Amino acid sequence: MIENQKPTALITIFGATGDLANRKLYPSLYHLYKKDKLDQKFAVIGVARRELMPDQFQEQVRQSILEHVGTNENLDEFVSHFYYHSLDVSNTEHYHDLKNLVDELDAHYQLNGNRVFYLAMAPQFFGTIAESLYKQQLKSDNGFNRLVIEKPFGHDYPSAKELNDHIRLAFSEDEIYRIDHYLGKEMVQNIEVIRFANAIFEPLWNNRFISNIQVTSSETLGVEDRGRYYEGSGALRDMVQNHMLQMVALLAMEPPIRLNTNEIRSEKVKVLRALRPLEGDEISNSFVRGQYNAGVSKGKQVKSYREEEHVDSNSNTETFVAGKIMIDNFRWAGVPIYIRTGKRLTEKSTKIVVQFKDIPMNLYMKTEETLNPNLLVIHIQPDEGITLHLNVKKSGQFVETTPVKLNFSNKSVDGMNTPEAYEKLLYDCLRGDATNFAHWDEVALSWTYVDPIAKAWEQTKESSFPNYSSGSMGPDEADKLLEKDGFHWWPVTDLDVENC
Amino acid sequence: MIENQKPTALITIFGATGDLANRKLYPSLYHLYKKDKLDQKFAVIGVARRELMPDQFQEQVRQSILEHVGTNENLDEFVSHFYYHSLDVSNTEHYHDLKNLVDELDAHYQLNGNRVFYLAMAPQFFGTIAESLYKQQLKSDNGFNRLVIEKPFGHDYPSAKELNDHIRLAFSEDEIYRIDHYLGKEMVQNIEVIRFANAIFEPLWNNRFISNIQVTSSETLGVEDRGRYYEGSGALRDMVQNHMLQMVALLAMEPPIRLNTNEIRSEKVKVLRALRPLEGDEISNSFVRGQYNAGVSKGKQVKSYREEEHVDSNSNTETFVAGKIMIDNFRWAGVPIYIRTGKRLTEKSTKIVVQFKDIPMNLYMKTEETLNPNLLVIHIQPDEGITLHLNVKKSGQFVETTPVKLNFSNKSVDGMNTPEAYEKLLYDCLRGDATNFAHWDEVALSWTYVDPIAKAWEQTKESSFPNYSSGSMGPDEADKLLEKDGFHWWPVTDLDVENC
Repeated sequence: MIENQKPTALITIFGATGDLANRKLYPSLYHLYKKDKLDQKFAVIGVARRELMPDQFQEQVRQSILEHVGTNENLDEFVSHFYYHSLDVSNTEHYHDLKNLVDELDAHYQLNGNRVFYLAMAPQFFGTIAESLYKQQLKSDNGFNRLVIEKPFGHDYPSAKELNDHIRLAFSEDEIYRIDHYLGKEMVQNIEVIRFANAIFEPLWNNRFISNIQVTSSETLGVEDRGRYYEGSGALRDMVQNHMLQMVALLAMEPPIRLNTNEIRSEKVKVLRALRPLEGDEISNSFVRGQYNAGVSKGKQVKSYREEEHVDSNSNTETFVAGKIMIDNFRWAGVPIYIRTGKRLTEKSTKIVVQFKDIPMNLYMKTEETLNPNLLVIHIQPDEGITLHLNVKKSGQFVETTPVKLNFSNKSVDGMNTPEAYEKLLYDCLRGDATNFAHWDEVALSWTYVDPIAKAWEQTKESSFPNYSSGSMGPDEADKLLEKDGFHWWPVTDLDVENC
Repeated sequence: MIENQKPTALITIFGATGDLANRKLYPSLYHLYKKDKLDQKFAVIGVARRELMPDQFQEQVRQSILEHVGTNENLDEFVSHFYYHSLDVSNTEHYHDLKNLVDELDAHYQLNGNRVFYLAMAPQFFGTIAESLYKQQLKSDNGFNRLVIEKPFGHDYPSAKELNDHIRLAFSEDEIYRIDHYLGKEMVQNIEVIRFANAIFEPLWNNRFISNIQVTSSETLGVEDRGRYYEGSGALRDMVQNHMLQMVALLAMEPPIRLNTNEIRSEKVKVLRALRPLEGDEISNSFVRGQYNAGVSKGKQVKSYREEEHVDSNSNTETFVAGKIMIDNFRWAGVPIYIRTGKRLTEKSTKIVVQFKDIPMNLYMKTEETLNPNLLVIHIQPDEGITLHLNVKKSGQFVETTPVKLNFSNKSVDGMNTPEAYEKLLYDCLRGDATNFAHWDEVALSWTYVDPIAKAWEQTKESSFPNYSSGSMGPDEADKLLEKDGFHWWPVTDLDVENC
């Protein structure tokens, strides 16, 4: 654990006029500032192509705070730390002027050479920017230098490797912070605590007692205005390679020796190394894809994926993936981990369901056809909490069983003060805690796992597309994937507090 | 499982004008009648010493229903099944007249010779009544004959054996239904279901994962008008020998082959046979006694036990017992089961706390001094439910743990329709299901365990009496009993739904 501290740093944000910066980064910095987690010694340089006057940029930041945070407490003071520099990222000359501003602010705010470079923009520029920062000597000699990169990190293993090699010429692995915002989510971070701080779960956390695990991340939205990007990505690259496999790694890893960055990453990497690789027929046996058709989503008629803007009217891009992942190690041999993610599904929900094996012998079979299995449900979003499904005696004369749910909802405790994922990750980065960022080894192994699937899907046009209606839970094939193993998807309902 | 059925029987209640009959038995019969669980072919003969006209008795039953159930639906019809017979239980002649009434009602209601004799009276008459019923041929030849006996069943092993031998001259073991009304409680019956219908608990239900078990049954009332009886009994005989040891047996038993009477009793008996017997110093090391002093109970000043009516002003009788029970078998070796029961305690509550062992290594020790152990709390009364105490991540930037409670409350589901313990047990008896009644072997083994403690306490006058204040949770010695093992009593709070 890295101790609480107030970091001092110059934060340079590339893509300062973009959506991510305005929706997430400025509000997160403001929260940190208000919580007194940022030293007064900090400055932010917004960098983008557009020409902006400094006060125009400060006004943009102010609007971002007013819109996304809704208060203006100390807002003037806060935005006074913000500066702007217009820059064409591919023009080396421009970095020279940026360096002057950086050095000036470093001196003015006494920032001790601590520098964070946040690349909140299209990935094709990552390599160029990193290289220019290095070559134009924007990295300091005295303080820390950290490069924060948004997804996607490459398009497959070769392109990710190329990108990484390029960046690594300028920044070392421990200076690179690859954002996976799922790793900043409260309940994703809770996976580790649930597993390692409760004596009753760890003894059961293996193939003797767990029957299967189901990880669902569903969205109700369609592709919205991201058609151009999404056409070249699809759900597999957009969600599975990063977020879904990261959750699988956290669920499946061995207890680390210590809870520090290296030990946790090392255990996650071991899980990813143990993923059973898919090839040939195993791909279609283990992974299914879907693409949404028109339908009714949240009561509104919505169009099909192929009708969306910037989308090929004959698109082969998947907007839904369901897969069965096997981990070939002692702990997990024989336990399928099912993942499922897609757009235009019934509900917006990210949930993990751990289904325990049936009891060795059902003493209650005469009174009840089948006994419900025990389930541990971890609600990631929008609800945050834990539900344990148990069987108890049905009230009354006879010994009959009935399923009940024991709930814990995070919201009701101190949910209001929970930092948003980006706020946490920014603060982690400023403090130098890389635990909740993806190491290159994780990225590389994830691509290696996903690549054969992506390749197979690119090479065969899916004639059934579109194969699920908007507002459904995906194509029938996703259900069949589990049915052939004798399982079914557990419903992705809200955290249920009916029993309270 | 015995199938649902509408039993036909003649129920003869000895002690028909007494408290138990009026408070519990008539209301329970009325509930069964209203739920259509009693055939129209039933009749009740109230038996007591007092001379009563039949309509006076029916009026008494009517008043009992009005007072304790509060409705009068079909009440006239119901009480029309009630008859009265005045009888001096030690006068053999009187049974002859009773037999005439029994035979007459059997014929009138077509009861097929099915007879239940319920002895709701002082135990010194049990043997005499049983013998007379047999000798005066009140047992039928064609139907079933069942003798229901209230506690106390003896005063120690020799007296219980003598009583049993006496009764067994007239009734066989499978005709004898020894009431332990705790066994009729919904959540006591739930112990078995929680254990055997949930895959996650049984693997943990042993000395590798459980650190200790705490069974508390506390009352706020004092001895009330039962001083005379209580002086000769005390908490050990009144609560521990029966209710507390029955709960221990249900918690500790091996999974039975089947859920039938014989298999469950056989497993309970095995637990009682495995209790580590106490002798010599082990008694005072393992069991402590208390007697309440004056104090404040539920906001009212109350007097000490020695000031109660019919109580010796120098009484040596315990109103509180705490004990450490060891079960010497493979499953439980090394796991103390602590029991605690007493009068004039802080709260009226019966609860079981299963404390799981600490995790093998606390990865969170830097952020939290000690991690809270996982607890499974079974709330028997007045709340009915289950609480599981877990640790989760404290919301916020850092990985710190915080304890949370997952709750299931029985009340909110269908608590209103839950039959009261006596209603269940009466119906069990009418249907011939003896599972929730104490077998002689259980009674005998319980007395064998308790006798050395009772004897030691009788022989040494406890000079510290009275040693706890009314409204407290008992004497300090009860806390020290656990402290010397490194444990403490978990608070007996209400089923907590604050997290919902």
